[in-house]
Amino acid sequence: MFFLEASGGAMKKRRPKIAFQGEPGAFSQQAIRQLLGDAVEPLPCQRFDEVFQMLDKDAAAGAVIPIENTLHGSVHENYDHLLNFNFTITAETNVRIVHNLIAPPGVAFSRIRRVFSHPVALNQCLQFFARHRRIERVPYYDTAGSVKMVMAEKLSDAGAIASALAADIYGGRILRRSIEDDRRNFTRFFLLEKPGSKRGLDIVRPASREYKTSLVFTTRNVPGALFRAISAFALRDLNLTKIESRPLRGSPWEYLFYVDLVGRVDDGNVRRALAHLEETADFLRVLGSYVRT
Amino acid sequence: MFFLEASGGAMKKRRPKIAFQGEPGAFSQQAIRQLLGDAVEPLPCQRFDEVFQMLDKDAAAGAVIPIENTLHGSVHENYDHLLNFNFTITAETNVRIVHNLIAPPGVAFSRIRRVFSHPVALNQCLQFFARHRRIERVPYYDTAGSVKMVMAEKLSDAGAIASALAADIYGGRILRRSIEDDRRNFTRFFLLEKPGSKRGLDIVRPASREYKTSLVFTTRNVPGALFRAISAFALRDLNLTKIESRPLRGSPWEYLFYVDLVGRVDDGNVRRALAHLEETADFLRVLGSYVRT
Repeated sequence: MFFLEASGGAMKKRRPKIAFQGEPGAFSQQAIRQLLGDAVEPLPCQRFDEVFQMLDKDAAAGAVIPIENTLHGSVHENYDHLLNFNFTITAETNVRIVHNLIAPPGVAFSRIRRVFSHPVALNQCLQFFARHRRIERVPYYDTAGSVKMVMAEKLSDAGAIASALAADIYGGRILRRSIEDDRRNFTRFFLLEKPGSKRGLDIVRPASREYKTSLVFTTRNVPGALFRAISAFALRDLNLTKIESRPLRGSPWEYLFYVDLVGRVDDGNVRRALAHLEETADFLRVLGSYVRT
Repeated sequence: MFFLEASGGAMKKRRPKIAFQGEPGAFSQQAIRQLLGDAVEPLPCQRFDEVFQMLDKDAAAGAVIPIENTLHGSVHENYDHLLNFNFTITAETNVRIVHNLIAPPGVAFSRIRRVFSHPVALNQCLQFFARHRRIERVPYYDTAGSVKMVMAEKLSDAGAIASALAADIYGGRILRRSIEDDRRNFTRFFLLEKPGSKRGLDIVRPASREYKTSLVFTTRNVPGALFRAISAFALRDLNLTKIESRPLRGSPWEYLFYVDLVGRVDDGNVRRALAHLEETADFLRVLGSYVRT
């Protein structure tokens, strides 16, 4: 172990750090792999605000955050952080959430009596637990963390539910693959970088040539304001792929709108739409343009 | 105590039950008071889905749920339940979230060393804790529940942060009133009833003569679909006060939209707007019309 850590440590120095929330093996780390390959060093953080702070104080060269899940919706806390920090979205990726039953090597499926995982993951495998009533569900703070614990404690009657990456990292064995109820379970992640950083990260380019642009704005609190705001896009045939509202602090019952549209911020149509939107919006900020996955 | 409970029990039989999430004294119970006065019996439930189930199986005549907060945004779980159950929104009310420091009678402020409450409430009183550094913040599962515990344990160095109603219910004394950092902290609640119930609940009517209507719809996944949908309202000068998107289960990256507008469902303009919306929406349901607070 010492040897591995020492050589790992020496290697790590040359690789840019990418902050993410969770234990090593979290789905965010899978997103980092998809976005940046193995040329970066994932930097685990406990909370989302720490992830943003790591980038803010240059302790990381980038941050990867989940922004929405197809079953649970938006990660609203991260929308709020996007506003409060001044970072640029430079890439997006979608990770399919595949849950695996993982146990220490040598533990047979028939011996499993308890399964640890994050409550959300446990709730996404209800059909598995209905088929195997002898197995008790035990909530744990983190999916990858539950694999780490089951391995460290060498539990002989317990498993954990997490990503294949977590099994790989902690040396667990996958006893049952893809036990989630709904395979249409995807999480979308953003890569964030500081604006104007000298050299950007080397993003693994997806095949797509389309771009998306994310922005946030507020409207004046008058009838039809949102309609007028989004008409700036509709009148130019720009396709909105997402709209999210968040409360505007200090102005009860007024909202911030986060919009994703297909197009690049320096396309003529997008530029004109943003100029049009600025006429009606009290506040407007472009969060980034990036290749559509 | 026995006498009180017995007479309370006898009284309760005549009063309709209203389900809410939390311990007695929760802000939801304050909402019940504002909406229905004292002519109903609040029925505490642990989780939001239990609140909906109580109404579903007629164990309650109504349910009161928080739907959005001016600092934290929408209660997305309840938006999802609104879709999955078939209830009608019959009233709304706004509760100002006032946090009070509450302790057992006889405990002076100078003796307080620990304060228990829900983490969200503790985080909304940071200026108070900054002024009183000797006081430790202790996270607890519920605001009103923290008062209940401090009273039951007769703690002589501890307080709790909760509503004035919680102090009243558990016999606690308010040592400091309104210690929240931001007074623009309101939560909006809905009263839900079963559609077509013989006799509705006696709602305390607010002074307003305006109505609001809440609805949920999906659009076809084509460019400009949301713009066309909300044009049905804008073209008739109907004011949208809220739009919220939620993921559409089974269709990754498609969304349900929840909209609140000013107007009553049987107003001519609203009826025509809904007919217009139906032309472009794949799915449309009116969740209720109710007096605007």
